[in-house]
Amino acid sequence: MHFDIITVLPELLDSPLSHSIMQRAKDDGLLTVAIHDLRKYGIGKHRSVDDYQFGGGAGMVMRCEPLADLLDKLLAARTYDEVIYLTPDGERFAQRRANQLSLGENLLLICGHYKGIDQRIRDAYVTLEISIGDYVLSGGELAAAVVVDAVGRLLPGVLNDETSALTDSFQDDLLAPPVYTRPAEWRGRAVPPILLSGNLPAIDEWRENEAEKRTRERRPDLLGEGLKD
Amino acid sequence: MHFDIITVLPELLDSPLSHSIMQRAKDDGLLTVAIHDLRKYGIGKHRSVDDYQFGGGAGMVMRCEPLADLLDKLLAARTYDEVIYLTPDGERFAQRRANQLSLGENLLLICGHYKGIDQRIRDAYVTLEISIGDYVLSGGELAAAVVVDAVGRLLPGVLNDETSALTDSFQDDLLAPPVYTRPAEWRGRAVPPILLSGNLPAIDEWRENEAEKRTRERRPDLLGEGLKD
Repeated sequence: MHFDIITVLPELLDSPLSHSIMQRAKDDGLLTVAIHDLRKYGIGKHRSVDDYQFGGGAGMVMRCEPLADLLDKLLAARTYDEVIYLTPDGERFAQRRANQLSLGENLLLICGHYKGIDQRIRDAYVTLEISIGDYVLSGGELAAAVVVDAVGRLLPGVLNDETSALTDSFQDDLLAPPVYTRPAEWRGRAVPPILLSGNLPAIDEWRENEAEKRTRERRPDLLGEGLKD
Repeated sequence: MHFDIITVLPELLDSPLSHSIMQRAKDDGLLTVAIHDLRKYGIGKHRSVDDYQFGGGAGMVMRCEPLADLLDKLLAARTYDEVIYLTPDGERFAQRRANQLSLGENLLLICGHYKGIDQRIRDAYVTLEISIGDYVLSGGELAAAVVVDAVGRLLPGVLNDETSALTDSFQDDLLAPPVYTRPAEWRGRAVPPILLSGNLPAIDEWRENEAEKRTRERRPDLLGEGLKD
C-alpha cells in the first residue's frame, strides 16, 4: 500500500512514521509513504502557500494554486482510492473506515494548516474528508500520522500474531476486556483467579462478559444505545 | 504547563513535539514536555517491560513494576492535575476536555503498547483514561502527541491572533464554515460574492448560516440531535 502525504511541515512527520510497526512495514515492503513538501509549490520568492481569508477574520487559508499544482502532478502519476483531506469537520474516523481503507492501494492525504484549505480545493479534488476526533489540532499532520498508523497496521503481514488486531477494541463493536500479566499478585492486588485457572472456555466467557460490561459502562453508544459512527 | 510522557518509544515523539506551534510554545517557556523512556525501568538484563497475558491469547501486556517504579518517581516530584492513560476504551477526547485540561499545571501521560498496560496500574494510578477516537493505533504515542497539541495550543500566548482558536470547529458546538482566499476566481470557481462585499454583519450572518448548515448535514449529533460527547 502506498500513501502520499501533502504537508507544509514534512519534518513533523519524520519520527512518527519511522519507528516500530510502521518502520517494519516499510522495511518489509508492505507500506510506502512519500511526504511532499507543499512549500516547494509555493508562490513567489517567499514560496507563499497561504493568504488572508476573504471576508476578514483571524486565521490564514491555504491557497488553491500550490495545492492544485502538486495534486495535479500526483494524480497524473497514480490512481488513488481516495483523496483525503484531514479536517475537524470531516467524517469521524473509526475502525470501520480504517478496515475499508486498508483494502485500497493508494491513498493521498492532504494536511491542512492555519484555518484550513480553500474550499474550492475541497470541492475540486477531495473525495473523502476525515476527522480523527472532535478537537482541533495545530495542523493535519498528526491526523495523517494517525490514519497511516491505524490503516497501515491492518495490512496483511504487518502485525505478527503477538500483536494481532483481531482482539482489538472496536473490531467487534466492543471495548477490549482488562488484561493482566505477571506477577499474579502485585502490591496486594491479585489477578482475577479465573485467568489463572487454565479453563479456556471459562476464560473466554469471562472476557466476553467483561468486554460487554466495560462497553455498557463506558460506551453504551457502541451497543446501539445511542449514536453509531 | 508541564507534560510528562511515559513511553517505550521516546524517539517516536521527537518530531511531532519539536516543530511549529509546539516548538514555539516551548521556546516561549509556555510549555515543557519531558519524555520518559520506560525501558530504563525494565526488568532484568533485557530491560523487559512486557510479558504474556494471563489466561492466554495474542498480545503482550505491559508489566506493573517498571510502570510503578517510574510513576512513583514522577509522583514524588510533582503534583499532577491528572494521570492520563491513552487507551481506546477511555473517554472519547473532545474539545471540551482539551479546554479543561489546558487550565491545569501538570499532566502525566502514559502511552500503552501491545495489548495495553496491566489493569492494576490503571486501578492504582490512573485518574483519567482518554481515547482520541474509535480506532486502534500501534501505541499510545500518537494519541499522547494529539493531546499535547490540542491542549498546548490553547495555552494563553501560544497562538497569535492570526491563528486564533476562538473561531475553530467545536468551540461553539458548530463546525467551522467554509474558508476562501485569493484569487477570487480560480479555474472558473468563484468565491461566494458575499465574502467580497465588505458588509461585515452580512458576512458574519453568512458564516453562521454556513456553519449551522454544515453541522446539520455532517454532524447533527453536535446540535443535540444525537449523542453528545
